[in-house]
Amino acid sequence: MTATDVPVDNGVNVEALLGARDALTAAPDAAKFDWRATCEWQNGTHSSSTVEGFFGLGEEQRHRTRYSFDTDHPEIFASADNGATPVEYVLVGLAGCLTAGVAAVAQNREIQLRRVSATIEGSMDVRGILGADTDVRNGFDGIKVTYDIDADATPAEIKALVAQSQKRSAVYDIITNPTDVRVEVR
Amino acid sequence: MTATDVPVDNGVNVEALLGARDALTAAPDAAKFDWRATCEWQNGTHSSSTVEGFFGLGEEQRHRTRYSFDTDHPEIFASADNGATPVEYVLVGLAGCLTAGVAAVAQNREIQLRRVSATIEGSMDVRGILGADTDVRNGFDGIKVTYDIDADATPAEIKALVAQSQKRSAVYDIITNPTDVRVEVR
Repeated sequence: MTATDVPVDNGVNVEALLGARDALTAAPDAAKFDWRATCEWQNGTHSSSTVEGFFGLGEEQRHRTRYSFDTDHPEIFASADNGATPVEYVLVGLAGCLTAGVAAVAQNREIQLRRVSATIEGSMDVRGILGADTDVRNGFDGIKVTYDIDADATPAEIKALVAQSQKRSAVYDIITNPTDVRVEVR
Repeated sequence: MTATDVPVDNGVNVEALLGARDALTAAPDAAKFDWRATCEWQNGTHSSSTVEGFFGLGEEQRHRTRYSFDTDHPEIFASADNGATPVEYVLVGLAGCLTAGVAAVAQNREIQLRRVSATIEGSMDVRGILGADTDVRNGFDGIKVTYDIDADATPAEIKALVAQSQKRSAVYDIITNPTDVRVEVR
């Protein structure tokens, strides 16, 4: 058996995803998902959030287990640093989303991945969140993601993988386009 | 000592924050922060990310400890569910950001908080990410955050706390407004 005979396996079940795409095209109501988190304030800027249930395919779903997360501000903001900052969670979400997409697209294109790593950096002028200058935005000025990918593919094919992942990434869309957020008090 | 004599303590050092605001107004270069994450693909849609160093106040900074996060897709997407989904990380970031803001604003307004909890829900038509319908966006259609707050304040004061937190929230800004994301391959 030569290297080219080994089937490409990035651990992504592309057949199932293509099947889901066909099924949801035929039954679009099942494609309506609700993703959820609950958050409980601890003290100061420290909160604990959990993720477990979600809605999709027409019914309540559950993760395999409950995921818990602590968010806080760092010590240089006079906080206790009991968790990553909320904006770092957004970066983690973006990195995870784009990287899952790279693996899925690579599987679909029969490109074997060996290593995919990314560094992600969001720049921010904190005078925004501190209210020091209302012309400064609260969020990131911009985000830069740099991929380092070792795969059985040409540099051009690897670039195309990453570009296609961006095109279908939920978090990339959330960050680059506006989304309506409604906040209510019960 | 009556109840009104007890100093309000939500665990937020407002004096330090107001001092930082003055200092950074005088020295705006120190307000330039870079927040970072690194991501390593594991298998399939599963990645592991870490958050530790960041840049701010003119120099390299570090969290008290390294924070690690796993992102994955759930089993109904034919994945192993080794972590919360990337979009749930965005919800956790938003919840943590708004809740930290509620605590900080309450401290500044001398409102004692007893309990702050939030549920957060993002709705999504997954035909977008599956590429089933290019008219369907990849990200959330919308996000709804519902606060339940027990505090020494009137309902109107509590609503105003939440509104002020939205106004200064980094993640609220990131989600409701577009941010440029540059993705490169090394």
